[in-house]
Amino acid sequence: MTARIRIGIAGYGNLGRGVEAAITHSPDLELVAVFSRRDPASVTLLNAEVPVLPLAQVADYTDAIDVMILCGGSKSDLPEQGPQLAALFNTVDSFDTHARIPEYFDTLDAPARAAGKVAMLSGGWDPGLFSLNRLFGEAILPRGETYTFWGKGLSQGHSDAVRRVPGVKAGVQYTLPAQDAIERVRRGEQPQLSTREKHQRECYVVLEDGADADQVRNAIVTMPDYFADYDTTVHIIDDATLAAEHSKMPHGGFVIRSGLSGESTRQIMEFSLALDSNPEFTSSVLVAYARAVYRLQQSGQCGAYTVFDIAPGLLSPKSAAQLRKELL
Amino acid sequence: MTARIRIGIAGYGNLGRGVEAAITHSPDLELVAVFSRRDPASVTLLNAEVPVLPLAQVADYTDAIDVMILCGGSKSDLPEQGPQLAALFNTVDSFDTHARIPEYFDTLDAPARAAGKVAMLSGGWDPGLFSLNRLFGEAILPRGETYTFWGKGLSQGHSDAVRRVPGVKAGVQYTLPAQDAIERVRRGEQPQLSTREKHQRECYVVLEDGADADQVRNAIVTMPDYFADYDTTVHIIDDATLAAEHSKMPHGGFVIRSGLSGESTRQIMEFSLALDSNPEFTSSVLVAYARAVYRLQQSGQCGAYTVFDIAPGLLSPKSAAQLRKELL
Repeated sequence: MTARIRIGIAGYGNLGRGVEAAITHSPDLELVAVFSRRDPASVTLLNAEVPVLPLAQVADYTDAIDVMILCGGSKSDLPEQGPQLAALFNTVDSFDTHARIPEYFDTLDAPARAAGKVAMLSGGWDPGLFSLNRLFGEAILPRGETYTFWGKGLSQGHSDAVRRVPGVKAGVQYTLPAQDAIERVRRGEQPQLSTREKHQRECYVVLEDGADADQVRNAIVTMPDYFADYDTTVHIIDDATLAAEHSKMPHGGFVIRSGLSGESTRQIMEFSLALDSNPEFTSSVLVAYARAVYRLQQSGQCGAYTVFDIAPGLLSPKSAAQLRKELL
Repeated sequence: MTARIRIGIAGYGNLGRGVEAAITHSPDLELVAVFSRRDPASVTLLNAEVPVLPLAQVADYTDAIDVMILCGGSKSDLPEQGPQLAALFNTVDSFDTHARIPEYFDTLDAPARAAGKVAMLSGGWDPGLFSLNRLFGEAILPRGETYTFWGKGLSQGHSDAVRRVPGVKAGVQYTLPAQDAIERVRRGEQPQLSTREKHQRECYVVLEDGADADQVRNAIVTMPDYFADYDTTVHIIDDATLAAEHSKMPHGGFVIRSGLSGESTRQIMEFSLALDSNPEFTSSVLVAYARAVYRLQQSGQCGAYTVFDIAPGLLSPKSAAQLRKELL
């Protein structure tokens, strides 16, 4: 058996924990250490035998780790840590601020090239697998429209907005794809749809003692930007129900390409995800790309890479010959 | 504007015609010539200005064509033409005899390497896009099961079998995915399902004068190998209905990965196609891969390639920077 690929994790929240779990399902990978800005003693891993080390000391481990998976947030962690760690390690991250991807790519490319490392950014599912399916759709059916629907999924930003409403003790918000819009797209109608027309919002709210349900409901559904322009439903529930039924982080969605071939032949391509845990799935994607990143660098490549630049076969532990025999 | 990629087509049936049509929707590609074993005067293209040339003279055109798209059949055409043309041109084909892909790969790899060309085999959707989704599924969710369902689609082999039944004047057979099996898979049940349990068969048959409908129906549904073990429905129709409603070649299907992440978190990935024309869609895939093959060879690569070995970004006419900005 060849040596296992040695993985490090930088940042240990939901995503980092998901990466740790995903590595245990990949016998060709080995988790060497977790790096955190917190006091290492306060970080509890799934496997207590894996060391937790201060992120400030990460540069001492360049010889011990083949690929560092960055599990920090896109807002402030990754813009700072990405370029620093790309100068030291092969890296994989899930940077998901779509509008800033081009500049983030540039901040990784130069240090990674200088170090002879591969830095893979924006792995996950959107950006990530959804992006790939948008690309396949328009490359294969150039005449057509691509539709991305999100949900059913827990939205962190909208849940925060709900919780800021006076009278709300706790709550969550789910984004739902509009089923009638999906059906129109699947039929090949190619409708013009805004993000608002494609989605609905559903809130589950626990009231503070004495709060008025109608007032709270009204405050939510009329909230500008977040809810006012959507079809929004508010369900009042109790603490126990919130804990029992709304503590998971499901998500998913659909990428549909509705195109024409020949004169006017209708062709529909669809990719969808139904995820019981958004962070665990994103982690699983990052771990598969860590394998690819290691192989790319071993074959002499360096610089910043995205899902578009990586041959799919590199994600699998199987050899190219085995893939052709078993999966083609 | 940079020069267009010059494409040739070898073999002009449904697939070749689809390739010709797809090229007209790709402004960066140009159809230079069609090569046929038939008398060129008997081959009528969509665009009469494109020359039809004898396949026997194809070796005279190595300087005029960047990528040859092979549109012959997998049974006898491609095993012979593939290795010959891979020694002369970059090639793309849709070889779809799954069990023979490994040996076919080997017959292309050596001549392509010797010539410094890229030979891409088994493009299309199965093998092709479905294969890619099988790979993504198991690489990202190693604990799980992958399910491939086909249909609703016209099956050439089963249609031929129906037409050989005494008393049948004409007819077609559609393969349908079993909807209840799909729903069980989507729910994450991970059932054990044979190909037979996953599919149903539907026949539309025109009777010869005087033929007995019940006898014909019985002969079809009890036919060993083809129908006896399936849930098969036979509809008796007339010539006009057959011509009006059953002259297209629709197909499609589903690749579903039902996996677990973390301890036992259910995650479902699904890719599906609903195609009004199977050959036109396959052609559209081949044309996108022709672009990728040209770029691979221009960057110094050679040998046999499959969908697993090709970075998705190479399929798109857009630059890597444009893809990151617009699609990631």
